[in-house]
Amino acid sequence: MKAIIQRVTKASVSVGEEQISSIGRGLCVLLGISIEDTQKDVDYMVRKILNLRLFEDENGRAWSKSVMDQEYEVLCVSQFTLQCILKGNKPDFHAAMSAELAQPFYNNILEHMRTTYKPEMIKDGQFGAYMQIHIQNDGPVTIELVSPSAPTDPRQLSKQEKLQQRKEKTRSKGPSESGRDRATPRPRGQDPNASSGADGDVSSEREP
Amino acid sequence: MKAIIQRVTKASVSVGEEQISSIGRGLCVLLGISIEDTQKDVDYMVRKILNLRLFEDENGRAWSKSVMDQEYEVLCVSQFTLQCILKGNKPDFHAAMSAELAQPFYNNILEHMRTTYKPEMIKDGQFGAYMQIHIQNDGPVTIELVSPSAPTDPRQLSKQEKLQQRKEKTRSKGPSESGRDRATPRPRGQDPNASSGADGDVSSEREP
Repeated sequence: MKAIIQRVTKASVSVGEEQISSIGRGLCVLLGISIEDTQKDVDYMVRKILNLRLFEDENGRAWSKSVMDQEYEVLCVSQFTLQCILKGNKPDFHAAMSAELAQPFYNNILEHMRTTYKPEMIKDGQFGAYMQIHIQNDGPVTIELVSPSAPTDPRQLSKQEKLQQRKEKTRSKGPSESGRDRATPRPRGQDPNASSGADGDVSSEREP
Repeated sequence: MKAIIQRVTKASVSVGEEQISSIGRGLCVLLGISIEDTQKDVDYMVRKILNLRLFEDENGRAWSKSVMDQEYEVLCVSQFTLQCILKGNKPDFHAAMSAELAQPFYNNILEHMRTTYKPEMIKDGQFGAYMQIHIQNDGPVTIELVSPSAPTDPRQLSKQEKLQQRKEKTRSKGPSESGRDRATPRPRGQDPNASSGADGDVSSEREP
């Protein structure tokens, strides 16, 4: 899982003309869920987002307080495009978890954040909708978080790891339950490139 | 080098009460320059930012047009916090290029973008200032780009690479010209954690 965390003075989400969510000072978190993510990634990400020291203390000492310390808010929005693999200049999103699986997974993350912090401090976008996210990045301060089991950029893999990946690819030419093999085409309903209501999706935004 | 690229309906930068820069449709790019970056990273990053297909074409086909194809604008802001290494929950920025070196390096990136595209389409923040970046993320669509020679997350390095790093660390216990050894303390003036006018810096924002 990848998260882009922006420290904000305020942030809000609108769908069409309607503002559906807003926060004051705090964090705007864009969350990219990968097909490989598990509960371990959720635990790591929630812990880090809520405890990252991105705020100053009462004496102006930077990087000393977390969003929870300051009782600030969090606006969390699912963002499959963070799980992008470039094919030349064209983004490919087959590493993103499919909308069907990502929606309950994402709700679980929100739930976990709410119970760890306070329910009323965690705001949300509208999963699958075409949204405008209004972000007032304060500083700016932007941090990228990657959960421990996130897939590495293929260019940065060692020879041994590449070999291992190739083996796994060969092994799973048949039907795969794991969803880990990016080379195996997924059923249409599980394809985040399909117009089936993934986060940020509108049919006009996607490939036919 | 890392870039967080947000597709925007509009974006602007203000310093204090004054709006110093703004764009309409296009890309808001937050750029994190590392101590290891070279011209090769600049070339890669400029090429990718300007050619990434993040916009739809006139028939609504997604991911088919670049910011240059559509004649949209780019707002580019330097963002050293992207070169963050977490020490527990505290961000450490010693992997970021120092402000003294990063400012000309960053200006070179802007210049390169302007000559590759059109000078008037590339807008800028104010390097070293405490800014508010107003971003209207459209979709949302957010892409993380990492240039080929960017340092890998240490947890993802192979054993051999770790060994190599340890060797380099040992070799450069003396004064180092390369600036590549994160374990060697840098002179105060080169420390991006120091209050010496790095991007996004205000003295109250930094550690004493």
